[in-house]
Amino acid sequence: MLIEMPRHTEIFGSVKIHELQRVLKIDSGGFENPRAKDISFEEIKNVLRHFAIIIPVKNEKIHLLDGVLRAIPFDCSVIVVSNSGRETPDAYKMEQEVVKNLHDLTQQEMLIIHQKDPELGFAFYDAGYDHLLDKDGLVRDGKAEGMIIGMLLAKSLGKDFIGFTDADNYIPGSVREDVIDYAAGFCMSESPYSMVRLHWRYKPKVVEDKLYFKKWGRVSETTNKYLNLLISTHTGFETRVVVTGNAGEHALTTKLTDLLSYSTGYSIEPYHFVYLFDRFGVGAETITNTDADAANAGIEIFQIETLNPHIHEEKGEEHVNSMMLGSLQTVYHSKLCIDYVKSKVLEELGDILEWEKPKENIIMPPIREIDAHKFVKMLESNAETFARFERGAIE
Amino acid sequence: MLIEMPRHTEIFGSVKIHELQRVLKIDSGGFENPRAKDISFEEIKNVLRHFAIIIPVKNEKIHLLDGVLRAIPFDCSVIVVSNSGRETPDAYKMEQEVVKNLHDLTQQEMLIIHQKDPELGFAFYDAGYDHLLDKDGLVRDGKAEGMIIGMLLAKSLGKDFIGFTDADNYIPGSVREDVIDYAAGFCMSESPYSMVRLHWRYKPKVVEDKLYFKKWGRVSETTNKYLNLLISTHTGFETRVVVTGNAGEHALTTKLTDLLSYSTGYSIEPYHFVYLFDRFGVGAETITNTDADAANAGIEIFQIETLNPHIHEEKGEEHVNSMMLGSLQTVYHSKLCIDYVKSKVLEELGDILEWEKPKENIIMPPIREIDAHKFVKMLESNAETFARFERGAIE
Repeated sequence: MLIEMPRHTEIFGSVKIHELQRVLKIDSGGFENPRAKDISFEEIKNVLRHFAIIIPVKNEKIHLLDGVLRAIPFDCSVIVVSNSGRETPDAYKMEQEVVKNLHDLTQQEMLIIHQKDPELGFAFYDAGYDHLLDKDGLVRDGKAEGMIIGMLLAKSLGKDFIGFTDADNYIPGSVREDVIDYAAGFCMSESPYSMVRLHWRYKPKVVEDKLYFKKWGRVSETTNKYLNLLISTHTGFETRVVVTGNAGEHALTTKLTDLLSYSTGYSIEPYHFVYLFDRFGVGAETITNTDADAANAGIEIFQIETLNPHIHEEKGEEHVNSMMLGSLQTVYHSKLCIDYVKSKVLEELGDILEWEKPKENIIMPPIREIDAHKFVKMLESNAETFARFERGAIE
Repeated sequence: MLIEMPRHTEIFGSVKIHELQRVLKIDSGGFENPRAKDISFEEIKNVLRHFAIIIPVKNEKIHLLDGVLRAIPFDCSVIVVSNSGRETPDAYKMEQEVVKNLHDLTQQEMLIIHQKDPELGFAFYDAGYDHLLDKDGLVRDGKAEGMIIGMLLAKSLGKDFIGFTDADNYIPGSVREDVIDYAAGFCMSESPYSMVRLHWRYKPKVVEDKLYFKKWGRVSETTNKYLNLLISTHTGFETRVVVTGNAGEHALTTKLTDLLSYSTGYSIEPYHFVYLFDRFGVGAETITNTDADAANAGIEIFQIETLNPHIHEEKGEEHVNSMMLGSLQTVYHSKLCIDYVKSKVLEELGDILEWEKPKENIIMPPIREIDAHKFVKMLESNAETFARFERGAIE
């Protein structure tokens, strides 16, 4: 891969945010130049071997899931966490079959579990982590909760890198690129605590019978503006470095997943930034021992512009509003959010806000204390919906 | 790559048409099974090193061309043949700049020429091949003519494989897949005379504000039906083996390009079949010496269903009608087209046909007699629009 060097890196306390980098060529020829870095396919594959890709699923069209699964390179492990309907026809059963069939054909390692499996809830309870359980002891609905399940499964496999991809992507080739882009980011990283966030070159919308290739979504634009304000109100220098506040497609080193807390709903992605700013940014309070290693190593955030556009299912205006609200709530409740920024957020939210001031999102604390191996052992013995298809043995 | 084995191969004289094969996994892990063949990335790269990809261009959006160029793997050579407007603003100049910039970054071998360059016309004239010249001695408008130019440039580079891709593809990742699929086809081929034709899994259309993933275009369906009729009326067995009659995305061995004649306009792709049927099919007339080698080796046609959908610019109803007419004209004038099929074609064409019977398409004879090296030497010395950016030297 040939990828632009970041033109600038914003250093905010221990957090290093690299400016957007464009993918210049997926399959490059080993030629570097002062503007671009070449990463060989071998280096990428070395990362992929330690990579788990998590696909949160909720009633997406089965054809789309099938395409996504076929696009994820063999070297990664795939973890499907489904919260699809189980009434007749049982969507989860169909998903499990698609996963099994593809495993039969490809021998790729694949895991699948249903979010509402009672034994899954019990395993969390048993691990002393009840932050994502409802009053019946089941895991709550929500993508963020599904992502946490996936991260634990990835940890049990001993993976070093964990990435996410949606199941509603119309373009398998763009899913493949996402995974390769993640790996490229980790190849460039100098810290064991790093994150890669993808930015779409275009996000086409259907406008009057034609595809219109819009460069920015309204929510993303606003989220990025306020995340950048959190930085600039503390450094005194205006910045636009954050362009991936709402990046659903992102990947982290397992070490970084252990460090983070997770917000729920649409705020999980912007909260990555807010949490890191609060904890490791300029003017952050004294950090705990657990965080000292990360603070010393630095936390690197890569933002990569994909070569492919992103074409997914349209979710409608309601989705846009919840996303805006969830995102700006995280900003509002940041320790770094000064009164000026708070008043701006309130102004921005306007009618969307039904209360006097933004609520605090539910935050789920780090998962590092959970023993992932023990956790998965419990699932293996008890959880009816859990299936693990191992990678074929290479002769 | 993991790709389905063809379930059936139709043998029609010396022509072997393999049934549609689906791509199961782009990046596979080396596991075969009775239904699927695994082709390693190394094998694919070995083909790519001898591969030229031709992009016929005519006023496509420059952003789309840029994406397509970035998606073609480094190991291939890229040949852009443009028939874009040269009035101010000079679209060709922009195209040349995009090609040059990308070469500067990637060091990939890239060639570009304008179809209307007078020296290009003269080079054809000088080579004694005036079948694509207009009365002013310029190359005619038309994609087929551009394709022939590209094939000669590819031959001058000593390439063994020649493929085509359109410049109006919205999804760079699908262009990358096309090239990899071509290479996979050639890896499977047992004959030096072979062709790979791609079939879209879906070709989305914008239908009432939503993307609708249509599996078959109306023209393709009809063209395939009649090509299959040419076979079945001579074998006595019904067949549906041909599903890529109008496949714009196709690739051939250079040896096969030397064998073929080329029809013009939208009929170039279906005419591949018609020409091969007429010349090498059941009941074909005695073949010339030139063809004897091919007849002995057999001519293999692979049809591959891409993992990615194909999203390109919409061309409108007029385009659909010309395509239908051009395609069915080739069938009508096939030596194998018996009266029954002729009457069916006439019925099918109905109102589209403005004459009593279908015209004969203009056919351009094989290009094997043209000395490609001499041809390109002339362009290098004289043609103002011709530019060749060589592959960077690997230290």
